[in-house]
Amino acid sequence: MQYPEPIAHLIDSFSKLPGIGRKTAARLAFYILDMPEGEVLQFANALIDAKRELQYCSICGNITQHDPCDICTDETRNDEQILVVEQVRDVVSLERMHEYHGKYHVLHGVLSPMEGTGPEDLNIPSLLSRLQDEKIKEVIIATNATAEGEATATYLSRLIKPAGIKVSRIAYGLSVGSDIEYADEMTLMRALEGRREIR
Amino acid sequence: MQYPEPIAHLIDSFSKLPGIGRKTAARLAFYILDMPEGEVLQFANALIDAKRELQYCSICGNITQHDPCDICTDETRNDEQILVVEQVRDVVSLERMHEYHGKYHVLHGVLSPMEGTGPEDLNIPSLLSRLQDEKIKEVIIATNATAEGEATATYLSRLIKPAGIKVSRIAYGLSVGSDIEYADEMTLMRALEGRREIR
Repeated sequence: MQYPEPIAHLIDSFSKLPGIGRKTAARLAFYILDMPEGEVLQFANALIDAKRELQYCSICGNITQHDPCDICTDETRNDEQILVVEQVRDVVSLERMHEYHGKYHVLHGVLSPMEGTGPEDLNIPSLLSRLQDEKIKEVIIATNATAEGEATATYLSRLIKPAGIKVSRIAYGLSVGSDIEYADEMTLMRALEGRREIR
Repeated sequence: MQYPEPIAHLIDSFSKLPGIGRKTAARLAFYILDMPEGEVLQFANALIDAKRELQYCSICGNITQHDPCDICTDETRNDEQILVVEQVRDVVSLERMHEYHGKYHVLHGVLSPMEGTGPEDLNIPSLLSRLQDEKIKEVIIATNATAEGEATATYLSRLIKPAGIKVSRIAYGLSVGSDIEYADEMTLMRALEGRREIR
Protein backbone atom coordinates (compact mmCIF):
# COMPACT_ATOMS: atom_id res chain seq x y z
CA MET A 1 0.00 0.00 0.00
CA GLN A 2 1.19 3.44 -0.89
CA TYR A 3 -0.26 6.38 1.00
CA PRO A 4 -3.54 7.63 -0.51
CA GLU A 5 -2.83 10.45 -2.93
CA PRO A 6 -3.91 13.43 -0.79
CA ILE A 7 -1.62 12.45 2.08
CA ALA A 8 1.22 11.59 -0.32
CA HIS A 9 0.97 15.11 -1.76
CA LEU A 10 0.99 16.65 1.69
CA ILE A 11 4.04 14.59 2.65
CA ASP A 12 5.75 15.81 -0.54
CA SER A 13 4.97 19.42 0.33
CA PHE A 14 6.28 19.11 3.89
CA SER A 15 9.43 17.36 2.77
CA LYS A 16 10.33 20.28 0.49
CA LEU A 17 10.88 22.40 3.61
CA PRO A 18 14.44 22.72 4.91
CA GLY A 19 15.44 20.21 7.58
CA ILE A 20 12.32 18.10 7.13
CA GLY A 21 12.95 14.58 5.83
CA ARG A 22 10.40 12.03 4.61
CA LYS A 23 9.74 10.56 8.06
CA THR A 24 9.14 13.90 9.74
CA ALA A 25 7.02 14.98 6.78
CA ALA A 26 4.84 11.89 7.22
CA ARG A 27 4.50 12.57 10.95
CA LEU A 28 3.45 16.16 10.27
CA ALA A 29 1.01 15.15 7.53
CA PHE A 30 -0.73 12.68 9.82
CA TYR A 31 -0.86 15.28 12.53
CA ILE A 32 -2.71 17.57 10.08
CA LEU A 33 -5.34 14.84 9.54
CA ASP A 34 -6.14 14.89 13.24
CA MET A 35 -6.32 18.68 13.49
CA PRO A 36 -9.71 20.44 13.47
CA GLU A 37 -10.65 21.51 9.93
CA GLY A 38 -10.75 25.17 10.99
CA GLU A 39 -7.10 25.12 12.04
CA VAL A 40 -6.04 23.42 8.82
CA LEU A 41 -7.83 26.10 6.80
CA GLN A 42 -6.12 28.77 8.89
CA PHE A 43 -2.78 27.15 8.15
CA ALA A 44 -3.52 27.02 4.40
CA ASN A 45 -4.61 30.66 4.37
CA ALA A 46 -1.58 31.71 6.39
CA LEU A 47 0.64 30.14 3.72
CA ILE A 48 -1.10 31.96 0.90
CA ASP A 49 -1.35 35.29 2.73
CA ALA A 50 2.30 35.27 3.74
CA LYS A 51 3.31 34.62 0.16
CA ARG A 52 0.92 37.15 -1.40
CA GLU A 53 0.82 40.01 1.08
CA LEU A 54 4.48 40.30 1.93
CA GLN A 55 7.28 41.78 -0.06
CA TYR A 56 10.78 43.03 0.54
CA CYS A 57 11.27 46.75 1.20
CA SER A 58 12.84 48.31 -1.88
CA ILE A 59 15.09 50.46 0.33
CA CYS A 60 16.40 48.14 3.04
CA GLY A 61 15.33 44.64 1.99
CA ASN A 62 13.37 44.04 5.19
CA ILE A 63 10.09 42.20 4.93
CA THR A 64 6.99 44.34 4.83
CA GLN A 65 3.32 44.57 3.89
CA HIS A 66 3.83 48.00 2.29
CA ASP A 67 6.86 49.40 0.51
CA PRO A 68 8.89 51.17 1.88
CA CYS A 69 8.76 49.45 5.27
CA ASP A 70 7.84 50.93 8.67
CA ILE A 71 11.46 51.31 9.74
CA CYS A 72 12.57 53.11 6.56
CA THR A 73 9.65 55.55 6.80
CA ASP A 74 9.98 56.10 10.57
CA GLU A 75 11.21 59.70 10.88
CA THR A 76 12.00 59.36 14.57
CA ARG A 77 14.80 56.94 13.73
CA ASN A 78 18.38 58.07 13.23
CA ASP A 79 19.05 58.09 9.48
CA GLU A 80 22.78 58.53 9.91
CA GLN A 81 23.33 54.89 10.86
CA ILE A 82 22.72 51.76 8.85
CA LEU A 83 23.02 48.37 10.50
CA VAL A 84 23.72 45.64 7.95
CA VAL A 85 22.40 42.13 8.69
CA GLU A 86 22.30 38.84 6.82
CA GLN A 87 18.59 38.13 7.08
CA VAL A 88 15.23 39.55 8.07
CA ARG A 89 15.10 37.49 11.25
CA ASP A 90 18.21 39.31 12.47
CA VAL A 91 16.31 42.62 12.26
CA VAL A 92 13.62 41.18 14.52
CA SER A 93 16.23 39.94 17.03
CA LEU A 94 18.00 43.31 17.09
CA GLU A 95 14.76 45.28 17.42
CA ARG A 96 13.86 43.12 20.40
CA MET A 97 16.72 44.71 22.38
CA HIS A 98 15.15 48.21 21.95
CA GLU A 99 18.59 49.85 21.97
CA TYR A 100 19.27 50.57 18.33
CA HIS A 101 17.41 53.46 16.73
CA GLY A 102 19.04 53.75 13.32
CA LYS A 103 18.08 52.12 10.03
CA TYR A 104 18.78 48.62 8.70
CA HIS A 105 19.90 46.93 5.54
CA VAL A 106 19.24 43.24 4.88
CA LEU A 107 21.71 41.44 2.61
CA HIS A 108 19.62 38.27 2.18
CA GLY A 109 22.65 36.08 2.53
CA VAL A 110 26.44 36.13 2.92
CA LEU A 111 29.33 35.74 0.56
CA SER A 112 30.03 32.06 0.23
CA PRO A 113 32.36 30.84 -2.51
CA MET A 114 31.54 27.26 -1.42
CA GLU A 115 27.87 27.74 -2.24
CA GLY A 116 28.56 30.01 -5.17
CA THR A 117 27.10 33.12 -3.54
CA GLY A 118 28.94 36.19 -4.84
CA PRO A 119 28.39 39.91 -4.20
CA GLU A 120 25.97 40.06 -7.15
CA ASP A 121 23.64 37.63 -5.38
CA LEU A 122 23.32 39.85 -2.32
CA ASN A 123 21.34 43.04 -1.69
CA ILE A 124 24.53 45.13 -1.97
CA PRO A 125 23.85 47.51 -4.92
CA SER A 126 20.93 49.11 -3.08
CA LEU A 127 23.14 49.52 -0.01
CA LEU A 128 25.74 51.38 -2.07
CA SER A 129 23.10 53.63 -3.63
CA ARG A 130 21.74 54.40 -0.16
CA LEU A 131 25.24 55.49 0.87
CA GLN A 132 25.33 57.95 -2.04
CA ASP A 133 21.84 59.33 -1.65
CA GLU A 134 21.53 59.53 2.08
CA LYS A 135 23.53 61.27 4.78
CA ILE A 136 24.93 58.13 6.29
CA LYS A 137 27.74 58.59 8.83
CA GLU A 138 28.19 55.00 10.01
CA VAL A 139 27.60 51.52 8.65
CA ILE A 140 27.51 48.88 11.40
CA ILE A 141 28.10 45.40 10.05
CA ALA A 142 26.25 42.75 12.04
CA THR A 143 26.80 39.66 9.94
CA ASN A 144 27.13 36.39 11.85
CA ALA A 145 30.34 35.38 13.62
CA THR A 146 31.08 32.75 10.98
CA ALA A 147 33.78 32.56 8.31
CA GLU A 148 31.25 33.69 5.69
CA GLY A 149 29.91 36.48 7.91
CA GLU A 150 33.47 37.67 8.53
CA ALA A 151 34.38 37.59 4.85
CA THR A 152 31.25 39.55 3.99
CA ALA A 153 32.04 42.15 6.65
CA THR A 154 35.57 42.57 5.29
CA TYR A 155 34.29 42.82 1.73
CA LEU A 156 31.72 45.46 2.62
CA SER A 157 34.13 47.51 4.69
CA ARG A 158 36.63 47.66 1.79
CA LEU A 159 33.82 48.75 -0.47
CA ILE A 160 32.41 51.43 1.83
CA LYS A 161 35.41 52.93 3.63
CA PRO A 162 36.82 54.72 0.55
CA ALA A 163 33.63 56.79 0.50
CA GLY A 164 34.70 58.26 3.83
CA ILE A 165 31.97 56.56 5.82
CA LYS A 166 32.77 54.99 9.20
CA VAL A 167 32.39 51.22 9.10
CA SER A 168 32.13 49.23 12.35
CA ARG A 169 31.66 45.58 13.24
CA ILE A 170 29.69 44.34 16.25
CA ALA A 171 31.87 42.88 19.01
CA TYR A 172 32.94 39.29 19.43
CA GLY A 173 33.35 37.85 22.90
CA LEU A 174 31.87 35.64 25.58
CA SER A 175 28.09 35.37 25.47
CA VAL A 176 26.49 36.88 28.54
CA GLY A 177 25.95 34.10 31.09
CA SER A 178 28.43 31.73 29.45
CA ASP A 179 31.35 29.94 31.13
CA ILE A 180 34.95 30.41 30.05
CA GLU A 181 35.38 26.69 30.69
CA TYR A 182 33.05 25.85 27.80
CA ALA A 183 33.94 28.65 25.39
CA ASP A 184 35.83 27.70 22.24
CA GLU A 185 39.36 28.95 21.56
CA MET A 186 38.36 31.37 18.79
CA THR A 187 35.78 33.06 21.00
CA LEU A 188 38.28 33.36 23.86
CA MET A 189 40.90 34.78 21.51
CA ARG A 190 38.45 37.37 20.21
CA ALA A 191 37.26 38.18 23.74
CA LEU A 192 40.87 38.81 24.76
CA GLU A 193 41.62 40.90 21.68
CA GLY A 194 38.50 42.98 22.31
CA ARG A 195 39.27 43.62 26.00
CA ARG A 196 38.48 47.05 27.38
CA GLU A 197 40.04 48.92 30.24
CA ILE A 198 38.01 48.94 33.45
CA ARG A 199 37.74 52.50 34.74
CA MET B 1 9.66 45.44 15.44
CA GLN B 2 7.32 42.50 15.53
CA TYR B 3 7.00 40.35 12.44
CA PRO B 4 4.40 41.66 9.95
CA GLU B 5 1.04 40.01 10.62
CA PRO B 6 0.98 37.54 7.69
CA ILE B 7 4.33 36.04 8.65
CA ALA B 8 3.43 36.03 12.35
CA HIS B 9 0.31 34.01 11.53
CA LEU B 10 2.31 31.57 9.46
CA ILE B 11 4.86 31.16 12.27
CA ASP B 12 1.95 30.48 14.65
CA SER B 13 0.58 27.82 12.33
CA PHE B 14 3.92 26.08 11.92
CA SER B 15 4.61 26.13 15.62
CA LYS B 16 1.38 24.24 16.32
CA LEU B 17 2.92 21.20 14.61
CA PRO B 18 4.57 18.58 16.81
CA GLY B 19 8.30 19.00 17.37
CA ILE B 20 8.42 22.45 15.78
CA GLY B 21 9.36 25.27 18.14
CA ARG B 22 9.18 29.03 17.53
CA LYS B 23 12.64 29.26 15.95
CA THR B 24 12.12 26.41 13.51
CA ALA B 25 8.65 27.79 12.71
CA ALA B 26 10.20 31.17 11.84
CA ARG B 27 12.82 29.48 9.66
CA LEU B 28 10.13 27.53 7.79
CA ALA B 29 7.90 30.59 7.39
CA PHE B 30 10.73 32.59 5.83
CA TYR B 31 11.51 29.69 3.57
CA ILE B 32 7.89 29.82 2.33
CA LEU B 33 8.37 33.49 1.40
CA ASP B 34 11.18 32.55 -0.93
CA MET B 35 9.32 29.65 -2.55
CA PRO B 36 7.63 30.13 -5.96
CA GLU B 37 3.98 31.08 -5.52
CA GLY B 38 2.85 27.95 -7.39
CA GLU B 39 4.52 25.68 -4.86
CA VAL B 40 3.03 27.57 -1.94
CA LEU B 41 -0.44 27.21 -3.46
CA GLN B 42 0.22 23.51 -3.95
CA PHE B 43 1.18 23.21 -0.30
CA ALA B 44 -1.97 25.07 0.82
CA ASN B 45 -4.16 22.88 -1.37
CA ALA B 46 -2.43 19.72 -0.17
CA LEU B 47 -3.30 20.69 3.41
CA ILE B 48 -6.96 21.25 2.59
CA ASP B 49 -7.29 18.18 0.36
CA ALA B 50 -5.67 15.88 2.89
CA LYS B 51 -8.04 17.13 5.57
CA ARG B 52 -11.18 17.03 3.40
CA GLU B 53 -10.71 14.00 1.16
CA LEU B 54 -9.39 11.51 3.65
CA GLN B 55 -11.23 9.55 6.31
CA TYR B 56 -10.65 6.51 8.45
CA CYS B 57 -11.95 3.18 7.19
CA SER B 58 -14.98 2.21 9.28
CA ILE B 59 -13.83 -1.41 9.34
CA CYS B 60 -10.09 -1.30 10.06
CA GLY B 61 -9.35 2.34 10.93
CA ASN B 62 -6.81 2.72 8.12
CA ILE B 63 -6.74 5.99 6.22
CA THR B 64 -8.63 6.04 2.94
CA GLN B 65 -10.32 8.15 0.29
CA HIS B 66 -13.34 5.82 0.16
CA ASP B 67 -14.87 3.75 2.93
CA PRO B 68 -14.24 0.83 3.32
CA CYS B 69 -10.58 1.01 2.34
CA ASP B 70 -8.78 -0.83 -0.47
CA ILE B 71 -7.31 -3.44 1.87
CA CYS B 72 -10.63 -4.29 3.53
CA THR B 73 -12.34 -4.68 0.16
CA ASP B 74 -9.48 -6.61 -1.47
CA GLU B 75 -10.86 -10.13 -1.92
CA THR B 76 -7.47 -11.59 -2.80
CA ARG B 77 -6.27 -10.94 0.76
CA ASN B 78 -6.50 -13.55 3.48
CA ASP B 79 -9.44 -12.60 5.70
CA GLU B 80 -8.52 -15.11 8.39
CA GLN B 81 -5.70 -12.94 9.76
CA ILE B 82 -5.85 -9.49 11.29
CA LEU B 83 -2.63 -7.64 12.03
CA VAL B 84 -3.15 -5.03 14.75
CA VAL B 85 -0.97 -1.89 14.62
CA GLU B 86 -0.80 1.34 16.57
CA GLN B 87 -1.02 3.78 13.70
CA VAL B 88 -1.67 4.15 9.99
CA ARG B 89 2.01 4.69 9.23
CA ASP B 90 2.72 1.18 10.54
CA VAL B 91 0.41 -0.27 7.88
CA VAL B 92 2.43 1.49 5.20
CA SER B 93 5.71 0.15 6.65
CA LEU B 94 4.39 -3.39 6.84
CA GLU B 95 2.91 -3.27 3.33
CA ARG B 96 6.28 -2.17 2.05
CA MET B 97 7.71 -5.61 2.89
CA HIS B 98 5.16 -7.31 0.53
CA GLU B 99 5.06 -10.42 2.72
CA TYR B 100 1.83 -10.06 4.66
CA HIS B 101 -1.39 -10.72 2.80
CA GLY B 102 -4.01 -10.61 5.57
CA LYS B 103 -6.07 -7.71 6.85
CA TYR B 104 -5.17 -4.92 9.28
CA HIS B 105 -6.64 -3.13 12.24
CA VAL B 106 -5.37 0.29 13.34
CA LEU B 107 -5.77 1.14 17.03
CA HIS B 108 -4.91 4.85 16.67
CA GLY B 109 -2.79 4.78 19.81
CA VAL B 110 -1.71 2.56 22.68
CA LEU B 111 -2.84 2.13 26.25
CA SER B 112 -1.02 4.71 28.32
CA PRO B 113 -2.13 5.35 31.89
CA MET B 114 0.47 8.16 32.05
CA GLU B 115 -1.25 10.03 29.24
CA GLY B 116 -4.73 8.96 30.29
CA THR B 117 -5.31 6.78 27.22
CA GLY B 118 -7.60 3.89 28.18
CA PRO B 119 -9.13 1.10 26.07
CA GLU B 120 -12.18 3.32 25.37
CA ASP B 121 -9.91 5.83 23.57
CA LEU B 122 -8.64 3.22 21.11
CA ASN B 123 -10.22 1.62 18.05
CA ILE B 124 -10.88 -1.60 20.02
CA PRO B 125 -14.69 -2.03 19.92
CA SER B 126 -14.65 -2.33 16.13
CA LEU B 127 -11.85 -4.92 16.40
CA LEU B 128 -13.99 -7.01 18.76
CA SER B 129 -17.01 -6.76 16.49
CA ARG B 130 -14.84 -7.84 13.55
CA LEU B 131 -13.84 -10.93 15.54
CA GLN B 132 -17.51 -11.84 16.03
CA ASP B 133 -18.65 -11.16 12.48
CA GLU B 134 -15.76 -12.46 10.47
CA LYS B 135 -14.03 -15.82 10.28
CA ILE B 136 -10.83 -14.68 11.90
CA LYS B 137 -8.39 -17.42 12.89
CA GLU B 138 -5.42 -15.34 14.05
CA VAL B 139 -4.82 -11.87 15.45
CA ILE B 140 -1.19 -10.77 15.10
CA ILE B 141 -0.34 -7.94 17.45
CA ALA B 142 2.29 -5.60 16.01
CA THR B 143 2.30 -2.77 18.55
CA ASN B 144 5.67 -1.13 19.16
CA ALA B 145 8.35 -2.68 21.35
CA THR B 146 7.71 -0.14 24.11
CA ALA B 147 6.18 -0.50 27.58
CA GLU B 148 2.88 0.89 26.27
CA GLY B 149 2.96 -1.29 23.17
CA GLU B 150 3.61 -4.33 25.34
CA ALA B 151 0.81 -3.49 27.77
CA THR B 152 -1.59 -3.01 24.88
CA ALA B 153 -0.57 -6.36 23.39
CA THR B 154 -1.17 -8.11 26.73
CA TYR B 155 -4.52 -6.36 27.19
CA LEU B 156 -5.71 -7.32 23.72
CA SER B 157 -4.56 -10.92 23.99
CA ARG B 158 -6.50 -11.36 27.29
CA LEU B 159 -9.55 -9.89 25.60
CA ILE B 160 -9.36 -11.98 22.45
CA LYS B 161 -8.02 -15.38 23.55
CA PRO B 162 -11.20 -16.45 25.42
CA ALA B 163 -13.02 -16.29 22.07
CA GLY B 164 -10.81 -19.18 20.94
CA ILE B 165 -8.87 -17.08 18.44
CA LYS B 166 -5.10 -17.50 18.15
CA VAL B 167 -3.26 -14.37 19.26
CA SER B 168 0.39 -13.85 18.32
CA ARG B 169 2.96 -11.09 18.86
CA ILE B 170 5.66 -10.12 16.36
CA ALA B 171 9.18 -11.11 17.43
CA TYR B 172 11.65 -9.07 19.42
CA GLY B 173 15.34 -9.36 18.73
CA LEU B 174 18.37 -7.78 17.14
CA SER B 175 17.59 -5.52 14.19
CA VAL B 176 19.01 -6.89 10.96
CA GLY B 177 22.42 -5.34 10.40
CA SER B 178 22.85 -4.25 14.02
CA ASP B 179 25.80 -5.00 16.31
CA ILE B 180 25.46 -6.93 19.56
CA GLU B 181 28.01 -4.50 20.98
CA TYR B 182 25.57 -1.62 20.69
CA ALA B 183 22.30 -3.43 21.47
CA ASP B 184 20.61 -2.59 24.78
CA GLU B 185 20.17 -5.24 27.50
CA MET B 186 16.42 -5.60 27.03
CA THR B 187 16.80 -6.30 23.32
CA LEU B 188 19.56 -8.84 23.98
CA MET B 189 17.43 -10.53 26.64
CA ARG B 190 14.48 -10.77 24.27
CA ALA B 191 16.70 -11.96 21.44
CA LEU B 192 18.02 -14.74 23.69
CA GLU B 193 14.53 -15.69 24.89
CA GLY B 194 13.29 -15.86 21.33
CA ARG B 195 16.19 -18.00 20.07
CA ARG B 196 15.36 -20.72 17.54
CA GLU B 197 17.08 -23.96 16.82
CA ILE B 198 19.27 -23.99 13.74
CA ARG B 199 18.44 -27.04 11.63
